[in-house]
Amino acid sequence: MTRKFNFSAGPAGLPEEVLAQAQQELLDWHGKGLSIMEMSHRSDEFVSVAEQAEQDLRDLMGISSAYKVLFLQGGATSQFSMIPMNLLRGKTNADYINTGIWSKKAIKEAARYCDVSIAGSSEGNGNIAVPTQAELKLNPDAAYLHYTPNETIGGLEYDYIPESGDVPLVADLSSTILSRQLDVDKFGLIYAGAQKNIGPAGLTVVIVREDLLGSVVAGTPTMFDYKVHADADSMCNTPPTFGWYLAGLVFKWLKAQGGVAAMEKANQRKQAKLYAAIDASDFYANPMAVANRSWMNVPFTLADDALDALFLQQAEEAGLLNLQGHRSVGGMRASIYNAVPEAAVDALISFMQQFEKQHA
Amino acid sequence: MTRKFNFSAGPAGLPEEVLAQAQQELLDWHGKGLSIMEMSHRSDEFVSVAEQAEQDLRDLMGISSAYKVLFLQGGATSQFSMIPMNLLRGKTNADYINTGIWSKKAIKEAARYCDVSIAGSSEGNGNIAVPTQAELKLNPDAAYLHYTPNETIGGLEYDYIPESGDVPLVADLSSTILSRQLDVDKFGLIYAGAQKNIGPAGLTVVIVREDLLGSVVAGTPTMFDYKVHADADSMCNTPPTFGWYLAGLVFKWLKAQGGVAAMEKANQRKQAKLYAAIDASDFYANPMAVANRSWMNVPFTLADDALDALFLQQAEEAGLLNLQGHRSVGGMRASIYNAVPEAAVDALISFMQQFEKQHA
Repeated sequence: MTRKFNFSAGPAGLPEEVLAQAQQELLDWHGKGLSIMEMSHRSDEFVSVAEQAEQDLRDLMGISSAYKVLFLQGGATSQFSMIPMNLLRGKTNADYINTGIWSKKAIKEAARYCDVSIAGSSEGNGNIAVPTQAELKLNPDAAYLHYTPNETIGGLEYDYIPESGDVPLVADLSSTILSRQLDVDKFGLIYAGAQKNIGPAGLTVVIVREDLLGSVVAGTPTMFDYKVHADADSMCNTPPTFGWYLAGLVFKWLKAQGGVAAMEKANQRKQAKLYAAIDASDFYANPMAVANRSWMNVPFTLADDALDALFLQQAEEAGLLNLQGHRSVGGMRASIYNAVPEAAVDALISFMQQFEKQHA
Repeated sequence: MTRKFNFSAGPAGLPEEVLAQAQQELLDWHGKGLSIMEMSHRSDEFVSVAEQAEQDLRDLMGISSAYKVLFLQGGATSQFSMIPMNLLRGKTNADYINTGIWSKKAIKEAARYCDVSIAGSSEGNGNIAVPTQAELKLNPDAAYLHYTPNETIGGLEYDYIPESGDVPLVADLSSTILSRQLDVDKFGLIYAGAQKNIGPAGLTVVIVREDLLGSVVAGTPTMFDYKVHADADSMCNTPPTFGWYLAGLVFKWLKAQGGVAAMEKANQRKQAKLYAAIDASDFYANPMAVANRSWMNVPFTLADDALDALFLQQAEEAGLLNLQGHRSVGGMRASIYNAVPEAAVDALISFMQQFEKQHA
């Protein structure tokens, strides 16, 4: 077995130690004679795994008891509907900030349930810089303010948390959750598809202030009602047990690494050296405003895009996988989530320098 | 490692060969240097896994090109909403047959979207025999007829497929899919949570006649629209990739066993010998009408329920796990899905006979 360096945007790489533990106990969890995925979700064993995962996430992120932590299915895309269905609470208007493909998707779905006001947009600058706080046009009567702290495809990231006053702040944290410290108390609701920084695809984590729950739009499917899940500890039906278990192993791994403070330091170093390598070269380029460069998703272009295919081929031969940019934008993208070790970034930089020497 | 016999109702046991293969390639799928769960769902590798799984399921069940096969999230419980939201198609009425806890849940959710007519019910007989075809009061203008071929909790199973004429027939096949041969052409829609006969929890398979798609109730979340998933080959967002992969391994395993015809023979034998052992004893009892006894879930009671705890404890010591009945009904329940080997049933019968000798 040779594990390679995986820069996939998601489903993304998991910590090797986590996979090794899952592998070791895959057929026989803790000597019980069966796999964790073969256990009833209501068994004492699985419930203890599930509860521990939630507690570890609460510890890692400092989530207070004012918040419910839900382990759901359906991906962030389902949240695009669940958020208006649950958070409108009788209001007819919500504020959204548009910074790229993912915020646009959220806006499009929300517009089916309410009047969406675009409180700010980066479209005018080609999505290379987020609107500043001063530029936001906030409606104090909006049901909530939604934003996308990191646009995974564009590689655009906020350098601040929007101030929304009494209006609940809602964030799609799919690609940045657990990558650095965050004051959860500033948010009404945080959601994240697991497949970047948490675990395997098929699990979605929602952290929501409990006082926002309890009122849904007429016709909301029962499974789209946060309160139903909150009241049942995310077990109103069979949850994705293996994903929940793996997320729990990732949370334990994060604690062992020193928690999000340590991840923040590592991620800061990883992105700084990768952008520095890009900036030091005339051959590679990243177009984002420096303050809004994503720590997690680093897109870059080659001076000559006729070399893209060769770059990808040689990178793969060098053990550097999944560097192709999103099909909608092209170029390259290195996603460097928590589980991507600094050694992977070092190897990528070496490869990029070597490739430049040969082809610039 | 000692694998035990697992009679869990779900999440249920998986074939040991499937788990062994998943274990072997968990950190390095086919020499690619990463786990299948660390790959983009749009990678050539994963797409080939996904397509092969669908093709194998089509082969196993004889699913024609008139049907779409969807790999979704949210469990059968989400289907309880998705079915009326998608299949009403402008109609206001749907027929449901009530045979126990799961059909009641489906009815309760459907009633939020349409007028539900109870076309038949086993409530009058305490849910021990399903209504016959002659007893059904079918509305020829109903949008569809929904029934639950097997009630997992009660252990009640249809011995026939209801005839609904031109009204599309909809079946919750969560616990019986792939357990025997089935004429898919008789159905408008079949759905099944994976965690019994297909794979791990967090995956839901929907088989739906394509001509029924394309019209949804106003306000239906995009992710609850079958056509959106059908048009995107179940990849309108990130699907539960690891579950889909594991389901594919289960389908391959089923083919290697001789397909559903061979499973039918094995399942027929397994249930016959277990019910025969129950019937041969005055100590154990199953209350169901013989024709409606479930092949998959065999509930039974002890003559003295004060012995239940001891039975469960000694069964566990004998390596027979998860025999406790559902919390809503008590007693015992042996779920004997495809992956439960005949040796498990033999071991259970031996244990039951021994326990009876000691305690009757």
